[in-house]
Amino acid sequence: MQFLSDNAARVHPAVWHAMMAADAPDAPYDGDALSRTLDAAFTALFGRECAVLWVASGTAANCLALAAMVPPHGAVVCHREAHIEMDEGGAPGFYLHGAKLLLADGHGAKVTPDTLAAVIDPIRDDVHQVQPHAISITQASEYGCVYAPHEVEAIAAFARARGLGLHMDGARFANAVAHLACTPAEAAGDVDALSFGFVKNGGLGAEAIVFFDVEAANVIRYRRKRAGHLQSKGRFLAAQILAMLEGDVWLANARAANAAAAAIGAAAGERLLHPVQANEVFLRCTAAERDALRRAGFAFYDWGSDAARLVASWDAQDAHVAALARAIAAL
Amino acid sequence: MQFLSDNAARVHPAVWHAMMAADAPDAPYDGDALSRTLDAAFTALFGRECAVLWVASGTAANCLALAAMVPPHGAVVCHREAHIEMDEGGAPGFYLHGAKLLLADGHGAKVTPDTLAAVIDPIRDDVHQVQPHAISITQASEYGCVYAPHEVEAIAAFARARGLGLHMDGARFANAVAHLACTPAEAAGDVDALSFGFVKNGGLGAEAIVFFDVEAANVIRYRRKRAGHLQSKGRFLAAQILAMLEGDVWLANARAANAAAAAIGAAAGERLLHPVQANEVFLRCTAAERDALRRAGFAFYDWGSDAARLVASWDAQDAHVAALARAIAAL
Amino acid sequence: MQFLSDNAARVHPAVWHAMMAADAPDAPYDGDALSRTLDAAFTALFGRECAVLWVASGTAANCLALAAMVPPHGAVVCHREAHIEMDEGGAPGFYLHGAKLLLADGHGAKVTPDTLAAVIDPIRDDVHQVQPHAISITQASEYGCVYAPHEVEAIAAFARARGLGLHMDGARFANAVAHLACTPAEAAGDVDALSFGFVKNGGLGAEAIVFFDVEAANVIRYRRKRAGHLQSKGRFLAAQILAMLEGDVWLANARAANAAAAAIGAAAGERLLHPVQANEVFLRCTAAERDALRRAGFAFYDWGSDAARLVASWDAQDAHVAALARAIAAL
Amino acid sequence: MQFLSDNAARVHPAVWHAMMAADAPDAPYDGDALSRTLDAAFTALFGRECAVLWVASGTAANCLALAAMVPPHGAVVCHREAHIEMDEGGAPGFYLHGAKLLLADGHGAKVTPDTLAAVIDPIRDDVHQVQPHAISITQASEYGCVYAPHEVEAIAAFARARGLGLHMDGARFANAVAHLACTPAEAAGDVDALSFGFVKNGGLGAEAIVFFDVEAANVIRYRRKRAGHLQSKGRFLAAQILAMLEGDVWLANARAANAAAAAIGAAAGERLLHPVQANEVFLRCTAAERDALRRAGFAFYDWGSDAARLVASWDAQDAHVAALARAIAAL
Repeated sequence: MQFLSDNAARVHPAVWHAMMAADAPDAPYDGDALSRTLDAAFTALFGRECAVLWVASGTAANCLALAAMVPPHGAVVCHREAHIEMDEGGAPGFYLHGAKLLLADGHGAKVTPDTLAAVIDPIRDDVHQVQPHAISITQASEYGCVYAPHEVEAIAAFARARGLGLHMDGARFANAVAHLACTPAEAAGDVDALSFGFVKNGGLGAEAIVFFDVEAANVIRYRRKRAGHLQSKGRFLAAQILAMLEGDVWLANARAANAAAAAIGAAAGERLLHPVQANEVFLRCTAAERDALRRAGFAFYDWGSDAARLVASWDAQDAHVAALARAIAAL
Repeated sequence: MQFLSDNAARVHPAVWHAMMAADAPDAPYDGDALSRTLDAAFTALFGRECAVLWVASGTAANCLALAAMVPPHGAVVCHREAHIEMDEGGAPGFYLHGAKLLLADGHGAKVTPDTLAAVIDPIRDDVHQVQPHAISITQASEYGCVYAPHEVEAIAAFARARGLGLHMDGARFANAVAHLACTPAEAAGDVDALSFGFVKNGGLGAEAIVFFDVEAANVIRYRRKRAGHLQSKGRFLAAQILAMLEGDVWLANARAANAAAAAIGAAAGERLLHPVQANEVFLRCTAAERDALRRAGFAFYDWGSDAARLVASWDAQDAHVAALARAIAAL
Repeated sequence: MQFLSDNAARVHPAVWHAMMAADAPDAPYDGDALSRTLDAAFTALFGRECAVLWVASGTAANCLALAAMVPPHGAVVCHREAHIEMDEGGAPGFYLHGAKLLLADGHGAKVTPDTLAAVIDPIRDDVHQVQPHAISITQASEYGCVYAPHEVEAIAAFARARGLGLHMDGARFANAVAHLACTPAEAAGDVDALSFGFVKNGGLGAEAIVFFDVEAANVIRYRRKRAGHLQSKGRFLAAQILAMLEGDVWLANARAANAAAAAIGAAAGERLLHPVQANEVFLRCTAAERDALRRAGFAFYDWGSDAARLVASWDAQDAHVAALARAIAAL
Repeated sequence: MQFLSDNAARVHPAVWHAMMAADAPDAPYDGDALSRTLDAAFTALFGRECAVLWVASGTAANCLALAAMVPPHGAVVCHREAHIEMDEGGAPGFYLHGAKLLLADGHGAKVTPDTLAAVIDPIRDDVHQVQPHAISITQASEYGCVYAPHEVEAIAAFARARGLGLHMDGARFANAVAHLACTPAEAAGDVDALSFGFVKNGGLGAEAIVFFDVEAANVIRYRRKRAGHLQSKGRFLAAQILAMLEGDVWLANARAANAAAAAIGAAAGERLLHPVQANEVFLRCTAAERDALRRAGFAFYDWGSDAARLVASWDAQDAHVAALARAIAAL
């Protein structure tokens, strides 16, 4: 029973169907009919003009989005447990040509205007110190916590006031929207670019970089190619994304994953390190308890020495979820 | 009738089957069972120990392979019409952190020890001039010309004598092997790394970087992640590659494409700019002649003002090929 | 008798005096009184607003100037024998984060709108090919040839028409002005930035980057620091430059060097590879002839196998110059 | 009365004399007689073979030294208040092509094996997290604190045990040696490379990168040129450094600066934030007290809102030091 990672989950049937339907000759790279339809699809979804580029990974999506905002001598402010800081193998340093990440605090891996200001305010405005050019937030956060629309808005206002770009890592954006029961536009707020994730949510290998600053997309097209991320059969990436949007598969999948996590979280009670708002459960438990869970057939990652991370996928089976909930309650 | 690009061709059914078969929970990234099998599969194919990394594009494959050989202050020597120089959007500059490409001449986009030496010998051995650290050759070349094993060997000997690494861009390596009717090991010769292409030959989005310098692969694993090319559902890339190797689908596909190109080339006769050895035909023809071909239903790219490039895919239909051959003969 | 390099020449006494006069406590970096005076000094010299940054080397000057114009995914077009291509150890690749140099032809290492267009026009306007963002020309050129004002103007008009930045490498800008007997503004034309060299012309270790695009300077201040070129005792660099400007020492020195080169060139007659317009003489001569000159006490560099490069410095002694002229005439 | 910065101090007369004595034609760049003597001079000083490169700034020295140890995908561990993190404008990101700085704690800006381990131990040994490749320590530290030889030795042993390179930022190395009353070799311990600073200690614009890993120097020669730091009249940098070594001017100057700081520190008593071991005094004092000191004619920097930094230079005048000590005692 797999609770290791939503990356380990299956591909949604609609994605397979769309990919196979795309298997006919068309223009290579992003000149195909499907890729050319993405801007309109996301513009409709967000009710706001946007330009969209597909890439194969969230790391590429995040870093290409940030490359539109941050010069090589600048910096991005993010949470100290942000994925771009902790889990992207230094990709921001590569894509931003040596720009820095400046690390802010905050509960649940969420930053606030105050924690951002605590990082930014002490920076002297001179050439000896690296100046921030953008903020990156993760929706839902690395601890499965969701920014409410008013929280995003406060950060966006802060970014504007400081003259900074704003990027949202939405590897689990769908889970955030599902939790908030709001529109995607409300969950994204006034960001300049959003990495809209699909791979963890039933896709195979396609994420969307949604640029609300449309001109920025035209620069980043060059950067995407230069990074080897302009796949020659791009129609298969576009097909995945469009299949996920069609009929709101993305939202249904996220709701399913969130519901599974909620059930697990309910069983965990006091053991929870963070409120369960998306599809991740961070559970306080001893090594012995983790062993017990594993002996019972549950696969998951340790989270430090006294906790576990359990991730519910879009295709989590009810029986597995129920079994896990029982097992946790019985610890 | 599509002769634009082998990138526009269909995905081979065996690839689809393998991908769908891989659609079960497994470890993310490259920890899955299929990815872990790649080293052995290529070691068997080449009869020589190798370490293999999948990536989604030939550009990423080429640049990551070169990153193992060239420091930021160094240079790669390649043909002046090499793909890495002409068509990768500056990716080598990105992946090699500003290293240079030094451009050599040669018929059919093939270099020789002499044309390489003509570039390298004038370089003063001092810090004011950028020093070469590797050679990159393309097998088959950008003009569909194939290096015979003795030609690769001569270049490899030259590289060793000069202390340079040797990389082979094998976006159409399969076509070269099919043409040479030799083993993959003979077609690759003594290179340090090979970008073994599958996407143009029936794959969907997976290429293999084959490191014969096994230690180099362990460094490049970090670079791949850092470039956003370590896809989280990597099992689907491994599955594609293994499906192509299984039963030598890669070779059968390349033979089919080569045969189609040969038929077209035979019809072209004196018009050929280059011998047809792989799956590309470069045809001298006027704008009016190109218009005539297009009106007859054939899609292809202009090649400058007085030539056309016609690419035969693995799935080129006999009837289309015959029709094109007739149309060319009738020009 | 030293004709190796103007880099080997002495420092002008006025420079020494100014440096020693600057040896009193003042603000570090570029906050000192002298550094703060540079903008005004060059604005007066060029009759046009400019912002000026000192750096210690021509390589740093050229690359920082170009960094204001060229994104990492772009390219600079320059002559194929330009200093930035041939003699800066790949510094443009470093400072421009992997951007390319595209190489144009032209007599005497001078480009023209036609030779520039021959490079630029074939570039497809798509993401697969690296797009030019700037042109760099050298005044006087690497072969001691000078662009007439109308030639610079034609290139500037071409650059504007193509939307490209224009940089002038003026390592020997003073020599060009001296040759042209025009104003510095006329010799620089409508460039966006000029690397105004002083080290070869009697300075010790200070060059000026003159930004006519004043805003660009404010970005490049960060890049200069980041490159380790914001020296902490910057007052000594500013002092050098101001001393060279004061009383037009820069122009007098260049005239002296040019006159010496002219005398040598006159003796060389038919042997000249290039007209002598600045302070360099490129002389056709055999190895035996070079040996003869060296035995007679003259130090200079070979230029390939059948030529020599002789450089006259600002402090070339009349007797040495006359002796060299006689020796060449007697070959 | 200047206590702002040792960068604001005068150049030592011996340095001026040596520079002027070097003002005769010699080979450009680092081919001159003086530059060629540096290896031997430092080998004698350290009693251990070393290869030495001059550069104009401490930032360049630090970053070029680290470039020998850290690949673009790696990291350097340093104190969170290290100069390379706080005051070099992101130069490490530039010179190391995007490598990270990982920040350790420690009193007085000094790290220990324990604080280093606290950073390194939690890093998973996989490609998702950036792996450390080197440690950088500052001797004397940014707070004027000195590592005792046994402390350096413990860090070096830790570095070796972890397979990490070790760099020492010795912008004030002379002050550390003066404080320790030991040999330079003892103060440097078993580091791989040392940035030996001279500019703050009576030099004009020359620092030495001392490579104890001699092979590394030969790679970094290319990087120095590529960074625009191979000045064409390098003899003037070598002359400065040799003048400082000759007769141990470097040590005498450091002793003078340390003595001045000690006198000030003695007056400060309980107000000291850090022990005064080198030439910097960090003084707890209110804004009103700082105003009082400034009205009395003393120039210095605020250090946050409730402290001041006072730096004693090699040429601090006794009367000024005594006056300052009295003024502080009287606060």
